[in-house]
Amino acid sequence: MTPVTLDHANFLTPRVGDGGVDPDRLEGVLSERFQEIHREVERRREEGGLGFYGLPYASESMRQVQEVADSFGQWFEAVVVVGIGGSSLGARAVAEALRGSLWNERSEESREHFPKLYFLENADPDTTSELLAHLDLRRTLFNIVSKSGSTAETMAQFLVVEEALRATMDENQLRGHLLFTTDPEAGILRAMAEERGIPALPVPPQVGGRFSVLSPVGLLPAAVVGADLEELLKGAAEMDARCRSGTLAENPAGLFATLLHTADVEAGRSVHVFMPYGDRMRAIGLWFQQLWGESLGKARDREGRIVNVGPTPVAALGAVDQHSLLQLLMEGPHDKAVAFVRVGRREAPMPIPPSHPDVAGLSYLGGHTLEALLETELKATAEALRRAGRPSLVLEVETLDERALGGLFMLLQISTVYAGALYGVDPLDQPGVELGKEITYGLLGREGFPSPEDSDEAD
Amino acid sequence: MTPVTLDHANFLTPRVGDGGVDPDRLEGVLSERFQEIHREVERRREEGGLGFYGLPYASESMRQVQEVADSFGQWFEAVVVVGIGGSSLGARAVAEALRGSLWNERSEESREHFPKLYFLENADPDTTSELLAHLDLRRTLFNIVSKSGSTAETMAQFLVVEEALRATMDENQLRGHLLFTTDPEAGILRAMAEERGIPALPVPPQVGGRFSVLSPVGLLPAAVVGADLEELLKGAAEMDARCRSGTLAENPAGLFATLLHTADVEAGRSVHVFMPYGDRMRAIGLWFQQLWGESLGKARDREGRIVNVGPTPVAALGAVDQHSLLQLLMEGPHDKAVAFVRVGRREAPMPIPPSHPDVAGLSYLGGHTLEALLETELKATAEALRRAGRPSLVLEVETLDERALGGLFMLLQISTVYAGALYGVDPLDQPGVELGKEITYGLLGREGFPSPEDSDEAD
Repeated sequence: MTPVTLDHANFLTPRVGDGGVDPDRLEGVLSERFQEIHREVERRREEGGLGFYGLPYASESMRQVQEVADSFGQWFEAVVVVGIGGSSLGARAVAEALRGSLWNERSEESREHFPKLYFLENADPDTTSELLAHLDLRRTLFNIVSKSGSTAETMAQFLVVEEALRATMDENQLRGHLLFTTDPEAGILRAMAEERGIPALPVPPQVGGRFSVLSPVGLLPAAVVGADLEELLKGAAEMDARCRSGTLAENPAGLFATLLHTADVEAGRSVHVFMPYGDRMRAIGLWFQQLWGESLGKARDREGRIVNVGPTPVAALGAVDQHSLLQLLMEGPHDKAVAFVRVGRREAPMPIPPSHPDVAGLSYLGGHTLEALLETELKATAEALRRAGRPSLVLEVETLDERALGGLFMLLQISTVYAGALYGVDPLDQPGVELGKEITYGLLGREGFPSPEDSDEAD
Repeated sequence: MTPVTLDHANFLTPRVGDGGVDPDRLEGVLSERFQEIHREVERRREEGGLGFYGLPYASESMRQVQEVADSFGQWFEAVVVVGIGGSSLGARAVAEALRGSLWNERSEESREHFPKLYFLENADPDTTSELLAHLDLRRTLFNIVSKSGSTAETMAQFLVVEEALRATMDENQLRGHLLFTTDPEAGILRAMAEERGIPALPVPPQVGGRFSVLSPVGLLPAAVVGADLEELLKGAAEMDARCRSGTLAENPAGLFATLLHTADVEAGRSVHVFMPYGDRMRAIGLWFQQLWGESLGKARDREGRIVNVGPTPVAALGAVDQHSLLQLLMEGPHDKAVAFVRVGRREAPMPIPPSHPDVAGLSYLGGHTLEALLETELKATAEALRRAGRPSLVLEVETLDERALGGLFMLLQISTVYAGALYGVDPLDQPGVELGKEITYGLLGREGFPSPEDSDEAD
């Protein structure tokens, strides 16, 4: 059995009508186009420019992460990941998928003595003061994650955290409450780690933040909550193997990218709704939103021409957002395509008791399970969208375990690289966020950055 | 001082260039159009068709909610709101804005003996089994919220919850662990409440789910965490008073609706990004997403013509999503407009210590506060978007308290009604979700609903 598969029947014209993609074109011109794209991506991969491809095979790095996590023993009651964007979204996606949202409220026994896991992402004073007041700092490890070592929010949080630690322990103890995840050579965090003897995990230089979930950035938090790292990488490697095929019909990442790209550029379906059915996958949606949006939303193509392209990813959640966004998806402009994620099998299906057989509005539910209800709602929503001429596809996850997660991450990352090639943009850069950073530096008085009031404020 | 104001300078052509709205048009034709819209909405209001307008003045209903909440005393350790979509999003928005995300982990003393507050929204077996196993049911109240009393997910959860309670207590005790919020006359829950003597709060008949945050649907959970309901309604009433003005420049809801509608229909800016700066406002974004998306995304206009209109609301979070969506907002297609929310003053600004004066990448941060950093990032992001020709506006919230929240909810709800009039659609219905429900009923074998396999599966 394959842990992750793609069902795209409702994306094709025979089922969804003119809103979909013609299967003859998919087998013809779009398959040919994909073969070119695939060759181009394989070439870039061979040249070493796509570092995330190597992560499923970085077993040495994985063992190092596992050793660090094991070394905590049962000393740390809580681990706080201090990071933002790609430095937190992947880790949150893994932890929530495997442990749910009540992990930090569970007893130590119920957590099998694995630590609680918190994320300090935003430069938000409320969140920060509350969390620091809440934690027993003597039993807390702070994992500071910034590849560059210069992310403003994360560095500010680091300064605040360090000061809080200093108030309760000496310098020697303090070191043991910090763990950096950063570039192996460059940046402030690496220099400080070496100078002060603070342990530091490496982010491979060719791996960008939003492609780093299978690097120590995502693996360390995963190990903290007891995830099986080997299975995670194994699932990713299996998916990678499937995606070596240049035959579109055999390559799920190729199909995902080709269908969504075609829907956008040929039919104006520029809003790509990612809608897993199941609460544990909510954070995967936020991770995907960054991956797809930041990789493909670009002003210039690879030849430097102004193109202003990129789909708008929307993270939704089934069945909850049937009661929020579905109305718009069903009846609004024909500018959307939907990617569902379906989990085939769950641990506890949860029977719905047939306790009110005489009440028509309740009796039809009794005897089913919550799992079947959720499943039925996905099926019904996809069918309703189909009848309304709106294409959708389903990523089928056999069961939401490490192996499937690894496969899902890899599928979506490889899709993003293919989609970058289809849109003609570099999926690995993010030049558009620099201006905001520079203005921030200027406003805060950082040396070398003019105050925006002095420069082109009035242009 | 007014607790909520609107700054739209960066939405106007003098500042943002051709991507914005011309101030002469705003003062001229758009103001005239708004006057018509305003008259139309005021008329509908007088006719009683817009029930949410009355909620700020329903002090009798508010007192009833407060009495119910007070009657819990310190008996209940936890309250679980069982509801989905409009039956949970508003309540979550209030609770998270006022109490943050760590509320349920805090000690009873730190919560001042107010109960923990959970939400059971999805028909998700994992979430449900985990939560029921986690709670001490003998000290838990379940607030079942469904206006119609027939929402499939909520009714299924009700059956599961009732069975779980039954396993630990007798029928008489069980009644005391249930509280319904539902239609005052109709539906299964109302009938059951009367038959079995289960307490039940009313949802006013003319108030739909997504406009119900200031009804008992939102007020009861707010009271559970100790919110000041009077202030909440007072803030809403103040905003309502400001929005009685038909003069666009004086009506913040009118400006919000007019600017975003104009950006969509005149410049193709159909993606409306709602981006508060501050973690506590994340759930407000999800609430707004339903309000804006479900109200305005419609196949037909009020005359019954097929129009397929409606903007796509995207809930983002500052500064976090500067590291996720900002690249797309800055460089992608010119199809977006951004609504920021800024909080003027926070309880704890959180100083950033100047502890590494010799490290250039850290020293510029020291001496500022996290509050100032967040604030600066908002300012810098708005400025960067402006320079890139992308319009934005800022909802300025003086401080994130009950009064401001009431004002913010009211502003956005009134805006939605104006926007409905501008788009020419009925903002109160949601006909597009019926088909999915019918297919679900059919698949589950509910009497009177054919199995979809027997009907138009092959159309």
